[in-house]
Amino acid sequence: MSPTVGVIGGGQLARMMVPPAVALGIELRVFAETHGASAALAATTVGDYRDAPAVLAFAEEVDVVTFDHEHVPQAVLAALVDRGVAVRPGPHALAFAQDKLAMRKRLTELAVPVPEWAAVASITDLEAFISEHGGSAVLKTPRGGYDGKGVRVVRDATEAVDWFERADSTGGGPILAEELVPFRRELSQVLARRASGETVLWPVVESIQRDGVCVETIAPAPDSAARLAGVAADIALTIAERLDVTGVLAVELFHTTDDRLLVNELAMRPHNSGHWTIDGSTTSQFEQHLRAILDLPLGATGCRDPWSVMVNVLGGPASGRLSDRYPTAFADQPTVKFHSYDKESRPGRKVGHVTAGGDDLEETVFRARAAAAFLED
Amino acid sequence: MSPTVGVIGGGQLARMMVPPAVALGIELRVFAETHGASAALAATTVGDYRDAPAVLAFAEEVDVVTFDHEHVPQAVLAALVDRGVAVRPGPHALAFAQDKLAMRKRLTELAVPVPEWAAVASITDLEAFISEHGGSAVLKTPRGGYDGKGVRVVRDATEAVDWFERADSTGGGPILAEELVPFRRELSQVLARRASGETVLWPVVESIQRDGVCVETIAPAPDSAARLAGVAADIALTIAERLDVTGVLAVELFHTTDDRLLVNELAMRPHNSGHWTIDGSTTSQFEQHLRAILDLPLGATGCRDPWSVMVNVLGGPASGRLSDRYPTAFADQPTVKFHSYDKESRPGRKVGHVTAGGDDLEETVFRARAAAAFLED
Repeated sequence: MSPTVGVIGGGQLARMMVPPAVALGIELRVFAETHGASAALAATTVGDYRDAPAVLAFAEEVDVVTFDHEHVPQAVLAALVDRGVAVRPGPHALAFAQDKLAMRKRLTELAVPVPEWAAVASITDLEAFISEHGGSAVLKTPRGGYDGKGVRVVRDATEAVDWFERADSTGGGPILAEELVPFRRELSQVLARRASGETVLWPVVESIQRDGVCVETIAPAPDSAARLAGVAADIALTIAERLDVTGVLAVELFHTTDDRLLVNELAMRPHNSGHWTIDGSTTSQFEQHLRAILDLPLGATGCRDPWSVMVNVLGGPASGRLSDRYPTAFADQPTVKFHSYDKESRPGRKVGHVTAGGDDLEETVFRARAAAAFLED
Repeated sequence: MSPTVGVIGGGQLARMMVPPAVALGIELRVFAETHGASAALAATTVGDYRDAPAVLAFAEEVDVVTFDHEHVPQAVLAALVDRGVAVRPGPHALAFAQDKLAMRKRLTELAVPVPEWAAVASITDLEAFISEHGGSAVLKTPRGGYDGKGVRVVRDATEAVDWFERADSTGGGPILAEELVPFRRELSQVLARRASGETVLWPVVESIQRDGVCVETIAPAPDSAARLAGVAADIALTIAERLDVTGVLAVELFHTTDDRLLVNELAMRPHNSGHWTIDGSTTSQFEQHLRAILDLPLGATGCRDPWSVMVNVLGGPASGRLSDRYPTAFADQPTVKFHSYDKESRPGRKVGHVTAGGDDLEETVFRARAAAAFLED
């Protein structure tokens, strides 16, 4: 009866697709890794996303397949496409979210501004890169990194001996080396693109990171004057169109000390820097992702408040459950929207987020941080 | 792990509790009547809510039991309470939402303004009532009516012969007769009350009915000057406190031609006249109901827009499914929020609703009506 969307991956991104799916009467089926996954309430399959037959069986009963993460191997994606399954975003686009070296190469071809970079295959290569780039380099494993994992800043090539050894032993190929960009802050431009091409953007946001993990976003980014917002939008639109992305695309950007924007990372799915849209925009990134992959007209992306501040809940209470903190948190912050991912507490783990909206930035930041603090130790 | 709420009834009200339950990490379990119920995605039991053992078994695994409708018999409610189950709202309050005669009697005792009424047990009683009330009466079956069902306007007592015959044969007792109130419009005051007593109100709304069915609400009610809003709030607060209601309470009101407010109906659950809060208020009535029955501090009830207009989708497309209309509806109304109840089309049936928000009432009404029209034949 209803349009049916299959999501591979059972994390909080799949979980947060449930509310808009319920609102729109879309059936959501999740392929989760474990029984206790964040999106367990919508899980119809529990299995390994690298297991092509399992993924194919799951896909048989859905109209379109999409993703909670970018780790599904290209071989599995190809098997889906061969079987005639609508895979959105498509494997040809996802390849650039899966492999940072491929992404850097392609964006450079498209003249999209990125940090200076090189594929380094040896200590010698890396030494040369470091000496050409002011005595440092940011090393990234091309695949599988997230939230600061798979990223390392080095001042001396020998610090990376273990990575090269691992790459050699696993046939992993070269590593991505990037200049250590002197940036004043990080921004994120989130957009959505329909299968048939229509594209809408939310305002560019500022994303505050700690140890490589997003802790807070401010929407719109303060002091994102017309020019800055325009440049961010242009970059993201170019990427969406030239890489043929379907669904939500998040483009993480460095705002450099000399006022340039450089692309840091890409994600072709709803993204932490877009969580504010659930409460702060007319259309959330999760609803928009569903619309986009079903090739439905996209919703309005206006802001519901002059400022929306999202703060991640990292770790959660050391003992007990997140909801044990609701009595104090709700009483203190009646205007803040609380989001639990129904995950066990663990130091540094994203277990939820909160969003505050308001007219005054400082006051809004205060409310959001206060609310999040009640949910952490 | 999570707080667990059991909802008896699998209609759209239970369905619309799912999104806030997901956001807050509350586990929602639904006792549905049928497998294809609107809230099927959260159904853990399919059964008959009059079957005490089935309801007791369902209730064993939840922290609190609440309702999608008011039809659960008092005997079943009593069995739950006897077993130590937290039933919210409690049977003592629900009794007044279940039986219109009991409600009229109690509100009269509380000096809450209601239409003139009488319990009529015979044609003779009714004849007397009609002649004392300007030649007409509104007859209501005390139990089981909704959306205009179980309500009949009569000008002559003989028109009600069949109802008295049925009442006699089923031992149904007297029928409620009310004056035909000369009203200019209908209003609805929705509030939420925690188990421990905290109460919050949304602004009073205007509710536009057709054939006894709500077709549209405007929030806040136009021209609800401070006095009118204050009277509506006082009436609803009195009812909530004196009837000891827990959860959401909707008080439907007649705004009479001589500018009084009289209580029409009560509902002790989220109500159609509160659907606008999903998109139009900081806290939706569905989230608030969950907070209230779990005795958590209530959320802010401010308006997100100067005007919120909700239009019901009645009937749905004669052929095909509601979502077949999304391409045109979404393209035409990108700012409107669409809600499907995942129900089969049927003339007059509530199969969804839409909500528009805006600064200008006429324009907002236009957008909401246009959006709904795309989803109907």
